Amino acid sequence: MASTFDFAVRAVDGQARLGEITTPRGVIRTPAFMPVGTAATVKAMRPEAVRALGSDIVLSNTYHLMLSPGAERIASLGGLHSFMNWPHPILTDSGGFQVMSLAKLRRVSGNGVTFQSHIDGSRHELTPERSMAVQRLLGSDIQMQLDECVRLPCPRDEVARAMLLSLRWAERSKAAFGEQPGRAIFGIVQGGTETDLRVESTEALVEIGFDGYAIGGLAVGEPQDAMLATVEAIMPRLPPDRPRYLMGVGTPDDLLQSIVRGVDMFDCVMPTRAGRHGMVFTRHGRMNLRNARFADDPRPIDSLSSSAMARDYSRAYWRHLVKSGEILAMMGLTEINLAYYQHLMAGARRAIGEGRITAFLLETARGWAEGEARNR
Amino acid sequence: MASTFDFAVRAVDGQARLGEITTPRGVIRTPAFMPVGTAATVKAMRPEAVRALGSDIVLSNTYHLMLSPGAERIASLGGLHSFMNWPHPILTDSGGFQVMSLAKLRRVSGNGVTFQSHIDGSRHELTPERSMAVQRLLGSDIQMQLDECVRLPCPRDEVARAMLLSLRWAERSKAAFGEQPGRAIFGIVQGGTETDLRVESTEALVEIGFDGYAIGGLAVGEPQDAMLATVEAIMPRLPPDRPRYLMGVGTPDDLLQSIVRGVDMFDCVMPTRAGRHGMVFTRHGRMNLRNARFADDPRPIDSLSSSAMARDYSRAYWRHLVKSGEILAMMGLTEINLAYYQHLMAGARRAIGEGRITAFLLETARGWAEGEARNR
Repeated sequence: MASTFDFAVRAVDGQARLGEITTPRGVIRTPAFMPVGTAATVKAMRPEAVRALGSDIVLSNTYHLMLSPGAERIASLGGLHSFMNWPHPILTDSGGFQVMSLAKLRRVSGNGVTFQSHIDGSRHELTPERSMAVQRLLGSDIQMQLDECVRLPCPRDEVARAMLLSLRWAERSKAAFGEQPGRAIFGIVQGGTETDLRVESTEALVEIGFDGYAIGGLAVGEPQDAMLATVEAIMPRLPPDRPRYLMGVGTPDDLLQSIVRGVDMFDCVMPTRAGRHGMVFTRHGRMNLRNARFADDPRPIDSLSSSAMARDYSRAYWRHLVKSGEILAMMGLTEINLAYYQHLMAGARRAIGEGRITAFLLETARGWAEGEARNR
Repeated sequence: MASTFDFAVRAVDGQARLGEITTPRGVIRTPAFMPVGTAATVKAMRPEAVRALGSDIVLSNTYHLMLSPGAERIASLGGLHSFMNWPHPILTDSGGFQVMSLAKLRRVSGNGVTFQSHIDGSRHELTPERSMAVQRLLGSDIQMQLDECVRLPCPRDEVARAMLLSLRWAERSKAAFGEQPGRAIFGIVQGGTETDLRVESTEALVEIGFDGYAIGGLAVGEPQDAMLATVEAIMPRLPPDRPRYLMGVGTPDDLLQSIVRGVDMFDCVMPTRAGRHGMVFTRHGRMNLRNARFADDPRPIDSLSSSAMARDYSRAYWRHLVKSGEILAMMGLTEINLAYYQHLMAGARRAIGEGRITAFLLETARGWAEGEARNR
């Protein structure tokens, strides 16, 4: 096992990169998709199944864990890895995004943000120092700076203010992170879809110097081409020897489009949340298992999936389970989606190694289009 | 594989019996606990996990499946075993109990029972012939006669009327079952806690002749000693070469107390339902994981459980998951309970084979009492 946090690019194909992050807790093959384990569990999944589907790392949420069961409690129980029985790498976010999206009565000052818990209304303060302290208590392998996210669309001066505040918090976060051998801290590029603000944010973060760089504040409702244009503006300004993480993205197509633009890491609730609501992603596109047309369909969801749930049960059965609100529907469809997302990442990694990522993207998109046309 | 349905008693210990039911779909070791898979799924469990915990057979509910997704649909999809990916034996109830407990506007006539679906209010009729037709369409290995259950307490004349009606339906059910090689039909003893009515019901059913005999209408709120007294009155009147099934029972103690009185088969929602509500059954008694005293408890639920969920996670983690409403809590605690129920059955079978079932019952009850005293 490595004793340090390192990243190596093994192959490039256009802007796409095949790489490996090494950590004392294991290797993360990139491009990597990180399933979201908000409250110390990837919803409806056992950790060993998350691993078996090809996940090298999961994300967990600082905001949720600091509120319940509490970071100090998790630390006294041996840390987050032990708590959730996931011995592999964990990335924690800073809590900033959830404060924006979930908390009540949020107030941002230069020092940090005060808010009320969405659970019980209790008052809390999140500063760069507290966010880093919580992430350290959790024992996170990749810790994120505290940033301020704005909702898009947003007036330019508000985007600029939040970006500049996030830069000040980046410096404080890095100082608070200190030295944690084998662990990493990532900075977060902000600036909405204002290209010059994104460039300014990127250059200032690189100047501060981080173990990796994330792009935050996207996938918040803007069109895909605006997101990709922002990614394109940022990528050439990031150091090539550091991992690049596009936060909260996205659909299978978002992932492939971002990989060909040089992104190495992703997280998103989409596969898990969609699975809990009866929607699956497959080689043949999306399927909504609530749809009555599956009621008598004896075919499996995807006979080539790495998940037995996609192979050994009929679409009619899944439709029945979804309609009946059965827990097995959430378990099975979540697994099918994570299997597909990890299958897609494995395919992308192989394709980059073989210098054919563009062909892979086109073939994959053709599979989705043909499948959805057949199902229409 | 056997081509016929058979039952053999391998050992007796007092009234307790160690046996084997052989069916074309596999052997059922008795005493057997059948997890309940109401809507063609044991809630929050994958079928292969249900099997791995030691279940030889599951129960599924005729009432639910005839309403949704429909027996004809399941038949056209290849039958219930294929539908739910459970290739092992399945017992289906007759639908009578759920019509009593769930359906609206129930009306019983000599012919059968008309009712409105609890799901959509649609009108349905369940007759002995329809119940058997549904169970045949499902492909059930052990089919139950239609009976009328009364809620206890209940006036004696009402209990008697329902018992006599159930006997007429027993004859019609048997005729409708016809010849289904390798499959079985069980009669159901009714009569509330009126011993003479139970005896009358038993003797009339044996006269008709069934592949097995069930005791219905118990575990509906009466005290345990009333239930056991009823079991004791019935047992000596049942043919020793046929399996005996106590329906809807019960707690771990109910199971052991019934086994020493000669019962071979059980089903109950208790382990699965309790698991979904944060309660577990263990060698050390019950634990309610909602309880705040587990918030910082680093110990596993049961380090000797056959379920990794009981061994590899702390009580503090389960308390966190239960409190947060996480699906993994329902998955894990259900599995822990089924593991314990099947562990208990395996222990009882071994003890009967060794002629020490009474000692086993006492040891087991001592474990519960000591554990619960420690936890108090």
